[in-house]
Amino acid sequence: MTRLKAAIIGGGNIADKNHIPALKHLSDQVDLVAICSRDLSKARALADLHDVPHAFDQTAELYRQCAPDVVIICTPNYLHYLQTIEALEQGCHVFCEKPPALNAQNAREMADLAHHKGRVLAYNFQLRQASEYALLMRCKADGLLGDIYHIKASFVRRRGIPGWGYFTNKAMQGGGALMDLGVHVLDLALHTLGYPSPDQVLGNTYDFIGKAGGKGLLGQWNPDAFEVEDGATAYLTFPNKASIMLSASFALNMEAEKERNLEVFGSRGGAKLFPFSLHTELAGELADIHFPFLEDIDIQLKNTSAFLDACAGKPSNVCTAEQGAILQEIVERIYQSAER
Amino acid sequence: MTRLKAAIIGGGNIADKNHIPALKHLSDQVDLVAICSRDLSKARALADLHDVPHAFDQTAELYRQCAPDVVIICTPNYLHYLQTIEALEQGCHVFCEKPPALNAQNAREMADLAHHKGRVLAYNFQLRQASEYALLMRCKADGLLGDIYHIKASFVRRRGIPGWGYFTNKAMQGGGALMDLGVHVLDLALHTLGYPSPDQVLGNTYDFIGKAGGKGLLGQWNPDAFEVEDGATAYLTFPNKASIMLSASFALNMEAEKERNLEVFGSRGGAKLFPFSLHTELAGELADIHFPFLEDIDIQLKNTSAFLDACAGKPSNVCTAEQGAILQEIVERIYQSAER
Amino acid sequence: MTRLKAAIIGGGNIADKNHIPALKHLSDQVDLVAICSRDLSKARALADLHDVPHAFDQTAELYRQCAPDVVIICTPNYLHYLQTIEALEQGCHVFCEKPPALNAQNAREMADLAHHKGRVLAYNFQLRQASEYALLMRCKADGLLGDIYHIKASFVRRRGIPGWGYFTNKAMQGGGALMDLGVHVLDLALHTLGYPSPDQVLGNTYDFIGKAGGKGLLGQWNPDAFEVEDGATAYLTFPNKASIMLSASFALNMEAEKERNLEVFGSRGGAKLFPFSLHTELAGELADIHFPFLEDIDIQLKNTSAFLDACAGKPSNVCTAEQGAILQEIVERIYQSAER
Amino acid sequence: MTRLKAAIIGGGNIADKNHIPALKHLSDQVDLVAICSRDLSKARALADLHDVPHAFDQTAELYRQCAPDVVIICTPNYLHYLQTIEALEQGCHVFCEKPPALNAQNAREMADLAHHKGRVLAYNFQLRQASEYALLMRCKADGLLGDIYHIKASFVRRRGIPGWGYFTNKAMQGGGALMDLGVHVLDLALHTLGYPSPDQVLGNTYDFIGKAGGKGLLGQWNPDAFEVEDGATAYLTFPNKASIMLSASFALNMEAEKERNLEVFGSRGGAKLFPFSLHTELAGELADIHFPFLEDIDIQLKNTSAFLDACAGKPSNVCTAEQGAILQEIVERIYQSAER
Amino acid sequence: MTRLKAAIIGGGNIADKNHIPALKHLSDQVDLVAICSRDLSKARALADLHDVPHAFDQTAELYRQCAPDVVIICTPNYLHYLQTIEALEQGCHVFCEKPPALNAQNAREMADLAHHKGRVLAYNFQLRQASEYALLMRCKADGLLGDIYHIKASFVRRRGIPGWGYFTNKAMQGGGALMDLGVHVLDLALHTLGYPSPDQVLGNTYDFIGKAGGKGLLGQWNPDAFEVEDGATAYLTFPNKASIMLSASFALNMEAEKERNLEVFGSRGGAKLFPFSLHTELAGELADIHFPFLEDIDIQLKNTSAFLDACAGKPSNVCTAEQGAILQEIVERIYQSAER
Amino acid sequence: MTRLKAAIIGGGNIADKNHIPALKHLSDQVDLVAICSRDLSKARALADLHDVPHAFDQTAELYRQCAPDVVIICTPNYLHYLQTIEALEQGCHVFCEKPPALNAQNAREMADLAHHKGRVLAYNFQLRQASEYALLMRCKADGLLGDIYHIKASFVRRRGIPGWGYFTNKAMQGGGALMDLGVHVLDLALHTLGYPSPDQVLGNTYDFIGKAGGKGLLGQWNPDAFEVEDGATAYLTFPNKASIMLSASFALNMEAEKERNLEVFGSRGGAKLFPFSLHTELAGELADIHFPFLEDIDIQLKNTSAFLDACAGKPSNVCTAEQGAILQEIVERIYQSAER
Repeated sequence: MTRLKAAIIGGGNIADKNHIPALKHLSDQVDLVAICSRDLSKARALADLHDVPHAFDQTAELYRQCAPDVVIICTPNYLHYLQTIEALEQGCHVFCEKPPALNAQNAREMADLAHHKGRVLAYNFQLRQASEYALLMRCKADGLLGDIYHIKASFVRRRGIPGWGYFTNKAMQGGGALMDLGVHVLDLALHTLGYPSPDQVLGNTYDFIGKAGGKGLLGQWNPDAFEVEDGATAYLTFPNKASIMLSASFALNMEAEKERNLEVFGSRGGAKLFPFSLHTELAGELADIHFPFLEDIDIQLKNTSAFLDACAGKPSNVCTAEQGAILQEIVERIYQSAER
Repeated sequence: MTRLKAAIIGGGNIADKNHIPALKHLSDQVDLVAICSRDLSKARALADLHDVPHAFDQTAELYRQCAPDVVIICTPNYLHYLQTIEALEQGCHVFCEKPPALNAQNAREMADLAHHKGRVLAYNFQLRQASEYALLMRCKADGLLGDIYHIKASFVRRRGIPGWGYFTNKAMQGGGALMDLGVHVLDLALHTLGYPSPDQVLGNTYDFIGKAGGKGLLGQWNPDAFEVEDGATAYLTFPNKASIMLSASFALNMEAEKERNLEVFGSRGGAKLFPFSLHTELAGELADIHFPFLEDIDIQLKNTSAFLDACAGKPSNVCTAEQGAILQEIVERIYQSAER
Repeated sequence: MTRLKAAIIGGGNIADKNHIPALKHLSDQVDLVAICSRDLSKARALADLHDVPHAFDQTAELYRQCAPDVVIICTPNYLHYLQTIEALEQGCHVFCEKPPALNAQNAREMADLAHHKGRVLAYNFQLRQASEYALLMRCKADGLLGDIYHIKASFVRRRGIPGWGYFTNKAMQGGGALMDLGVHVLDLALHTLGYPSPDQVLGNTYDFIGKAGGKGLLGQWNPDAFEVEDGATAYLTFPNKASIMLSASFALNMEAEKERNLEVFGSRGGAKLFPFSLHTELAGELADIHFPFLEDIDIQLKNTSAFLDACAGKPSNVCTAEQGAILQEIVERIYQSAER
Repeated sequence: MTRLKAAIIGGGNIADKNHIPALKHLSDQVDLVAICSRDLSKARALADLHDVPHAFDQTAELYRQCAPDVVIICTPNYLHYLQTIEALEQGCHVFCEKPPALNAQNAREMADLAHHKGRVLAYNFQLRQASEYALLMRCKADGLLGDIYHIKASFVRRRGIPGWGYFTNKAMQGGGALMDLGVHVLDLALHTLGYPSPDQVLGNTYDFIGKAGGKGLLGQWNPDAFEVEDGATAYLTFPNKASIMLSASFALNMEAEKERNLEVFGSRGGAKLFPFSLHTELAGELADIHFPFLEDIDIQLKNTSAFLDACAGKPSNVCTAEQGAILQEIVERIYQSAER
Repeated sequence: MTRLKAAIIGGGNIADKNHIPALKHLSDQVDLVAICSRDLSKARALADLHDVPHAFDQTAELYRQCAPDVVIICTPNYLHYLQTIEALEQGCHVFCEKPPALNAQNAREMADLAHHKGRVLAYNFQLRQASEYALLMRCKADGLLGDIYHIKASFVRRRGIPGWGYFTNKAMQGGGALMDLGVHVLDLALHTLGYPSPDQVLGNTYDFIGKAGGKGLLGQWNPDAFEVEDGATAYLTFPNKASIMLSASFALNMEAEKERNLEVFGSRGGAKLFPFSLHTELAGELADIHFPFLEDIDIQLKNTSAFLDACAGKPSNVCTAEQGAILQEIVERIYQSAER
Repeated sequence: MTRLKAAIIGGGNIADKNHIPALKHLSDQVDLVAICSRDLSKARALADLHDVPHAFDQTAELYRQCAPDVVIICTPNYLHYLQTIEALEQGCHVFCEKPPALNAQNAREMADLAHHKGRVLAYNFQLRQASEYALLMRCKADGLLGDIYHIKASFVRRRGIPGWGYFTNKAMQGGGALMDLGVHVLDLALHTLGYPSPDQVLGNTYDFIGKAGGKGLLGQWNPDAFEVEDGATAYLTFPNKASIMLSASFALNMEAEKERNLEVFGSRGGAKLFPFSLHTELAGELADIHFPFLEDIDIQLKNTSAFLDACAGKPSNVCTAEQGAILQEIVERIYQSAER
């Protein structure tokens, strides 16, 4: 197998804690040769920390000097589009952080260019690699669920508006809880159904708590600079008559500190995760099935590996450019519905 | 106070176990003078059991002989409309079982006639009298919830398709889980919001399990005669930007045997019932509040009493004819949405 | 179907609480015409209580006057043999309480005579009808257990030596905890394996607590009249290499008040009852399966019904005469082993 | 006290993690002077890691150069016999890993030679030093158990066939779960009874799961190279009428991940470990006694110390050569019984 | 044994539910011949209900017509003194409800007269007969507690001010929670210590909640008629250096609905009831001992029986006249301390 | 803000683990310049470990060379008085470990001198900074408790007599469990009430277990050198009719390993800590309120910071010299009461 040259764009936490360690673990397949950040000192510090040869503050320089095969984009949401387009134009495979872009048209263009260039563009929805989700896919494949007709997907926090970063900045993030949390479980729900495009989308967004302020559990946010939704709900229907109920929230007056659930209802069985349980009939009786020994997996490592598989033309369950475009369109339709 | 003369139409379980005992307990306000059922022997047996003077199999005869002030309608759904119209025409107050009717237009006509006749028409949504719901209303009134912007309402069973009665007969019931179970929690959710009419409604219905058959927990239903939805979900948005997520099901592959939940999310606090808990900030910290000593109440007795209060012109929280018409219209819009 | 005439021999608790009510429930198939007890007044009182026409204190008279088709034997163990032989000689089907007899030879003769006479002889091991055991059989039939190679069967009590009856009388009962409790779970274990005859049997009996006395939880027994084993353990191996571990006890210094367990270990799955759980692999992962809605069944009614099915030549899972003879031989080999 | 010179034979995990740290902790009594392994580089690496002066790959050289007083044998089972014989011949005390040997005759010869040479030969059954077992011994000594007449001993895992090492190699290990796990609890059970020799032994072994393969929880084993039993059960009776039920398994379709139990039943009380609880009568009532503050002990350190006590002629509860021979004979009788 | 003639004075709940049923159960020792109540119709109704021959509304008439051997006094507290004096003067044994009297001097006179007349005067502290307390006494006798040096006694309710009866009437009851609840556990604590007289008493009473009103859990009390303490605490020291902490409350802002605890601390062990647990050292380790099978006892029946034993000159653990006088004096000293 | 120069007197654990790290964290406000211990090598080692410039074994030398602004006294109790007096005379602010002194007069003199010198003297009761206590104070301030009228304060251990240090030495510590543990919760209780002086104090001390010996859970103490109380209980009443029940113990035969509770009962609500819960009425119902997200705080750091605030003339909730004097007087009155 040819080894690939990789570069990382973006010098924040997600590069430092997720992508760089994953690439280092996969050093039999990939060489991380450069890190690029607007702040050169940050890029260099990160490169030194992880033993990466090059550091840049201009992507043009990066492409000129290093000619990477693969680019990992870990910048704020508003930069995903331009940096992906540039990387694809440079002939690189691209592994872009979620969400794909600020709007549906950008995501569509990104997918089209990737297709046109014959390059892999993938998005980093790591939950696809969770043991629980892998088991769901096996249960579905084994027919244990029958026809799946309804999914409840939720990723909500009681008072988890981050007190750091750009999470509440509309221009840079494009949105709030839906863009940051909701897309994870929406991606899982869509993937479970085969990634269909919904025929109808109805949604709502809220910002009462974000704008009012209060006790924070992820640091203290600034209510006066709170520009995004603190929560969103939506309902999607699909041509095959299936439906999805979606809830995403940074701040909800509920009991749990956070909930990240996928409830899948099928004609023969239903599954709930996380954690995973299966509810069906077995031997003529209603059965509850638990799997107490699911492995605890490094989902970033596995997702980066899945991206590299895709680059190598191997089967892979990484989120594709096409799927990213469908998802981004749904997000946009939810926001539009909420603005009615 | 003038004592009222009451008659019951319908000789089934709901008359026997709910309405007759409630009227008997309220004998200081009301005399139950007659029971009318298509099956005269059933009417007479019930009358004998509960010491009621008259039994009929024709409503015309009932009105002629007894001239009741109040009529309680406990018949299958498809009879609610005509029997209510007849009773109102006879100048009676009417306490009708839920749901109001088979369709929105009938419910609207019933409300209009009641208004025109100056008579009370009310629907028997007893959950309004539950201690938990009364506490929710007090919390709302005390400002503990702030602005309520989202409600999740669900009434679902794992495998609770009744193996008796007309519950799966489309012509007689007008629908399945939504008509039988969903309306209860939809009424609570709407009442919590002040009974607004939604601007948008999107919904879905399912019948995989009902038509396939399987292990029943409320007797064994006949899948070949299963004509209604076994489940429905819907999403409602309101002019004030609030939203409701609704789930109703006779049969869902989930862990619990049944769930009847109302989750109310407000800007200052959130409440979950049943049972009741409140989640808010207190003394500058996030607080979970439980009420371990809520009274166990005879909700039918209290709802019948609320209906009699309405007849006497006193304040009452019984479901009004107008509210019933709004609710029935929403149900119809959900079914229409599902048939897209 | 021909209705059968039935008579009960024995006027104790087991007749009063188990067999007579079951026969009364099955009155579409069987008429209970007589009760016979050494104590005529007891027989008559019981007959009056349950509306049974005849009462006797001599079986000869019973056969002469009533000519029953079916005889239920509910007497102390030492009478099972002679009364069964007499009933078979009279051409009756016989439903005999457990254990079959005081020794293996008697049980063998009983089986041989039933065979010779073409009559049904069955033993009342009601646990075979428990929902949990029925589910075990279905799981086995569906291949969920694979090859069953080891069973742990135990029926033990912490301090449950009965303070009444003949339970501690060696001459009348033939033994103690093994004869009274152990045979129930031994029958289940053997039936699960297809009722093979073991190639080797090793066992032990104990009477420390029974003879020493102490706090009783089923009344206070008399340690000076304690003649049987208070506990027994045994190990059985079978020609197909399967094995059974058996524990039976009236009095064991353990934590639980009582335990009645069957643990079945197979190549593909293992099951534990009571209650029932299944432990296997599903979708490539280790799975624990629980069945929260098993029906609570009247096992005596169902076992009596199974006996009547056998009399009518229908398929039945009641304990046969042949099985009873195998079981009694094992019990005898355990006692012999213990006396080494 | 004279300090002893010690050498370790075997360079695997058990030397590295158990024996060497224990000897180092006991450096006031013993000097670890050498490590010998077939693989000299392994021996040297281990010696360097733990600051041990010498490393060898030939035991002859070890004895020639170092003349140790004490030898610790940590090699695979098939080497225990020859290496122990050699060490005793060299006049050393020997502390040998469990099980003693591949067969009863070897274990007997080892014990006889130790006796003849006047040297200590002991086996490393560390569970004897567990707080729970020490408490059991004190309860027994204080008469809280009375006469002990039955013990259930089990050491079973749900799916714990090691995916590394020689555990499934018949020639090197002599057996499977019984040799690796069962001997630990069998040793405790025998020691609790005073280490009697059983008069009868009946047993069974199984290999369905080991040979079929499946999900592993201790790595993935190779079913094609699985030559030993994955489980064994046995029943032992003793001249004083006591009995032992033994279960050992690498792979059992049960709920728990593993169980290591000793249930001791006596005439006055019963105890269960691990953890420890006592069930008896106190002040005329049935009492359950728990000991919430038992110390968490380094059982290897304490067992090595007990061995050194034995070498110094002090009282010690380490497993003696004679006990090892009795245990090995029982293991052999179980295997012989299983091959009937 | 001579049968005794008994009469009951007082026609309330405690007579109806406690004393009459107990006397009826003990009909081999005692004949209940009369019931006397100020309200004759009440007396007669009760007599009819329980098949008692005579009913009176004047005690003088009762004594004249029936000449009872034994009198049971079940009237409000303020009547205990005079009715007891009268009964003793009539030569009767007296079984008086708790508390003994309204003040210490009355209780002392009652005890002195009983002594002078040679008649039994006893008070109905039924908790002395509870299985848990009996076990405490056995543990103490067996030395399991060593020297008892401190007791915490509490009988408190969260919001249990009775909404009926005279419980909040100072003149009739003499006090509130201390007189009604506290005396029960104070009696147990004193009896545990051998009923010494304290050398020092310090106490406090409270009435914030009782006078303010609020949600009631035993009906709704009237805060405007609340004249007694809603709670009291006290500390008692004894010549032997032991001490008692006492808490009694009708209404306390705590989590539990009610707590009735006795915590006994001794040099060798400590016990807590209700329920009962024992905490001590056993076999050299700290042990927690639970007794899961304590009998559920009819404590009124057993206490009435104990009173009859005392009348018959047999050993009895019923609360004596002397003990009642000591207890009443302590209650008075607590109230005096609180009024400082 | 002027930076302060600080010195620590005492070289034990409390200096090493609590005070020095706290001062180091607050290095923006304070410079730790010296450590003084009777054992110079100890002082020097500690100074080296924490990078402190000076080490002394004579306080005179410390004052001469360093002229500190602030002195932290971490010596055994019997040295608190003289060292505090000396430090105040030197013009220093003093932060002294608890308890203030060996007797009330010393504590009073210390407070008077601090007042006279215009210097801060404070005692290190860190529990005042616990999140739970801060929340209690906020609840009290918000009126959620109403009038507080009774507090139960306890700090008890099952078998926690320290096996090291001077804890059982009467001359050096002045007392046992009350001086070491009880003062912590007594300080909280008094502070909750506004630090009133009690009008009456009654108490008791015990030493049964301490003098008898037994199993220790904090090492093994020497019963022959046990000179202090192992436990104390007391009851305090205040002019405003409030009361405190106090329990302190090193060794109590109870179930829990330790309990540190403050139960505060008020007219509107009651609170229990640790952990914190609030019990009151809300929306007309009895409510239990829990706060699941209280922060885990470094209470020593926060208390040292509070002391520095006091030195800087800022508001502070550190225990003042005056409060310390009141507390010490109560302790003395308890001991005097116990010696009656």
